[in-house]
Amino acid sequence: MTEVEKARAGEISSALKEVAQFEGIDPERLRVLVADGRVVITGYARAHSRVIGIGEGLSTKVNANIGTSPDHDDLAIELEKLDAAVDAGADALMDLSTGGDIEAIRRSILERCTVPVGTVPIYQSIVEVTRRGGEIADCTKEDFLGVVERQAKEGVDFMTIHCGLVRRLAGDVAGSRTAGVVSRGGCFLLQWIVKNGRENPYYEYYAELLEIAHQYDFALSLGDALRPGAITDSTDRPQIGELLVIGELVDRARKAGVSVFVEGPGHVPIHEIPSNMILQKKVCGAAPFYVLGPLVTDIAPGYDHITAAIGGAVAAWHGADFLCYVTPAEHLRLPSVADVRDGVISTRIAAHAGDIAKGVRGANDWDRKISRARAELDWETALDSSIDPSRAREMFDASPAGSEDLCTMCGEFCAIRGTRRSRE
Amino acid sequence: MTEVEKARAGEISSALKEVAQFEGIDPERLRVLVADGRVVITGYARAHSRVIGIGEGLSTKVNANIGTSPDHDDLAIELEKLDAAVDAGADALMDLSTGGDIEAIRRSILERCTVPVGTVPIYQSIVEVTRRGGEIADCTKEDFLGVVERQAKEGVDFMTIHCGLVRRLAGDVAGSRTAGVVSRGGCFLLQWIVKNGRENPYYEYYAELLEIAHQYDFALSLGDALRPGAITDSTDRPQIGELLVIGELVDRARKAGVSVFVEGPGHVPIHEIPSNMILQKKVCGAAPFYVLGPLVTDIAPGYDHITAAIGGAVAAWHGADFLCYVTPAEHLRLPSVADVRDGVISTRIAAHAGDIAKGVRGANDWDRKISRARAELDWETALDSSIDPSRAREMFDASPAGSEDLCTMCGEFCAIRGTRRSRE
Repeated sequence: MTEVEKARAGEISSALKEVAQFEGIDPERLRVLVADGRVVITGYARAHSRVIGIGEGLSTKVNANIGTSPDHDDLAIELEKLDAAVDAGADALMDLSTGGDIEAIRRSILERCTVPVGTVPIYQSIVEVTRRGGEIADCTKEDFLGVVERQAKEGVDFMTIHCGLVRRLAGDVAGSRTAGVVSRGGCFLLQWIVKNGRENPYYEYYAELLEIAHQYDFALSLGDALRPGAITDSTDRPQIGELLVIGELVDRARKAGVSVFVEGPGHVPIHEIPSNMILQKKVCGAAPFYVLGPLVTDIAPGYDHITAAIGGAVAAWHGADFLCYVTPAEHLRLPSVADVRDGVISTRIAAHAGDIAKGVRGANDWDRKISRARAELDWETALDSSIDPSRAREMFDASPAGSEDLCTMCGEFCAIRGTRRSRE
Repeated sequence: MTEVEKARAGEISSALKEVAQFEGIDPERLRVLVADGRVVITGYARAHSRVIGIGEGLSTKVNANIGTSPDHDDLAIELEKLDAAVDAGADALMDLSTGGDIEAIRRSILERCTVPVGTVPIYQSIVEVTRRGGEIADCTKEDFLGVVERQAKEGVDFMTIHCGLVRRLAGDVAGSRTAGVVSRGGCFLLQWIVKNGRENPYYEYYAELLEIAHQYDFALSLGDALRPGAITDSTDRPQIGELLVIGELVDRARKAGVSVFVEGPGHVPIHEIPSNMILQKKVCGAAPFYVLGPLVTDIAPGYDHITAAIGGAVAAWHGADFLCYVTPAEHLRLPSVADVRDGVISTRIAAHAGDIAKGVRGANDWDRKISRARAELDWETALDSSIDPSRAREMFDASPAGSEDLCTMCGEFCAIRGTRRSRE
């Protein structure tokens, strides 16, 4: 039985217990949410990984992407990024490698990583076919599904598969948009569909894909191939058309006893984010929603961790369950180790701001603790309890007159000291 | 006549023309907004400064705070911060100096600064009385109002004065909050009021203050002494009680022909921001709203430019007109020159995201330009048009395989290249 089937059968599995304890919620309540598909649990494929819950009523989770590219493949650096992401508090990690020995890289990541690991199997399918001298359109059903099965066997926890990009949607999109298709997996499929004049194989053979997912009990993350890559493309007919197909695929996955969540945009102006969240929850049967950003403007390469933090916070507030980080390097280059760290922290800030807004149990206890310490001029607690104590301390200590109870912003004119004086 | 009075008299002044041209709106429409107090124009006191408009229908403006403190007073560094702020695109600058020769520092800033300059005159009043050997409570009416007049004569464009902290509110706040009073000016007044057992002098002598503001035609920024300094303190009775007083003071300023806008929070969880914006506009007669942040969580010292960008974007979307920047150094120390730059850019991102959401004319043209360039793999335009071209270029160039039409994120597997191929 898969975890979903166990939950439906009334079983409180050890994975479910671990999540209930972390979230501080009743295991029976969580069991019902998992049975209904409103929560997905993942991370139980490898014994050294945390199990996490993603979905309704739980804290918003954060994913960090790492991985090589054809121009940049160094396993050691990717493992450094892995450590940086996990140290900074990422709840999950995706390996998006497309360069070097991608199987060996993935194995190393699976061995080392203590949080759930996701992949996008089409990358490996495409890399393999091109290394055999073929082109994208030469990929066969076996190339697509074979990789999924091999990765599942290795212990990958969740896989992004762009099953919803059906052939009738493929014609629509290239001409009507500012930025066309910006999903890498989506773009591979688009080329495959257009060149072969055939249906998306992940859609055509979805029943077989679900069998593999059921057998190995990994979670299916239904990718949004047509996510907008520019704010002027957001919430357009191709994006929503694909979402409607994804909604049907959620139903089929649930019928098959497979854990499923849904991926979402992308570049979205801030005022459209609430509608996008409501729409996904409605047409996808309240399946967990995993969003990339959203980035609320296109103007800030070098600062897209900030444009994504703005969008991610608003998305989480309005129901997004899982935020994929965006680093300062987005749109410019592969992230460095420092970029990974910045990306995780800024996305965690967004997730936490959303958790406060959506009333996640105990979320603002953290804020209260830090603010109380500030009000008591207890710098040790205020710094040590912050989201990145080493950064906070480094900045505080760099202050030319930094002392234990004085910051250079106000010095003797500190409002908190003044308030304490007036209270006394 | 003040600028407000000119607008009411039907005059299209040169300052008003400058703003209308910058915003791309009809001068007559702008004149009506200024006459009604829905827009404030400022920056006309010094010929070398830009004039800016703040308020309804205009792009959201960004302020940067600089200034010395008792533990950190170096004019050269403050002038470097000034240059960094203006170069990074700040629309206004506040000098909050409390250390060193604050009059000389302000004069240097006023001479050099090409955007409107604001101050918080109570700082100078308090510094002067303490240097004379007195304490805060010894400040006289003449100490408070005399500084306002001297600063006005020098060409300060707008002044933050905490007129709304009336005596009956002062008792309420210290005990009921996690973080008490965190406004520095507010805290000085609180101590003055409590120690002397008298009414806030800026409130008691508000008529005389308005006479000075009318004579020198500077804009009054009604400070929120009781802004929340922790998210658990937000939207509480002291904050809203002060806002109601401020609403009355807006009416009195308008009757006196004085330009007036209103300052707001502070630390506010994201879901309370829309209500805070609606409330201010309603009870303050649609006066422009100038917010500090808001910071949507307390947990992230070292990253408060990000917590404030999240809050600022949501605030601007829901009607805030003027965002005061927050730097990464907030809560830790005075900002460095680099912190100033980061603070301005992240606040400009928030302002722009808000402008797109509130439909400011032409706001998303900028996004469209960059996204079109991206889709055409025109790196030159995409980088040069971005909010911080030097940062974007530096990150792009640092890419190990950076070439003119390839980024290391995807390399040969670039989705944009693939989309172009499938289109062809």
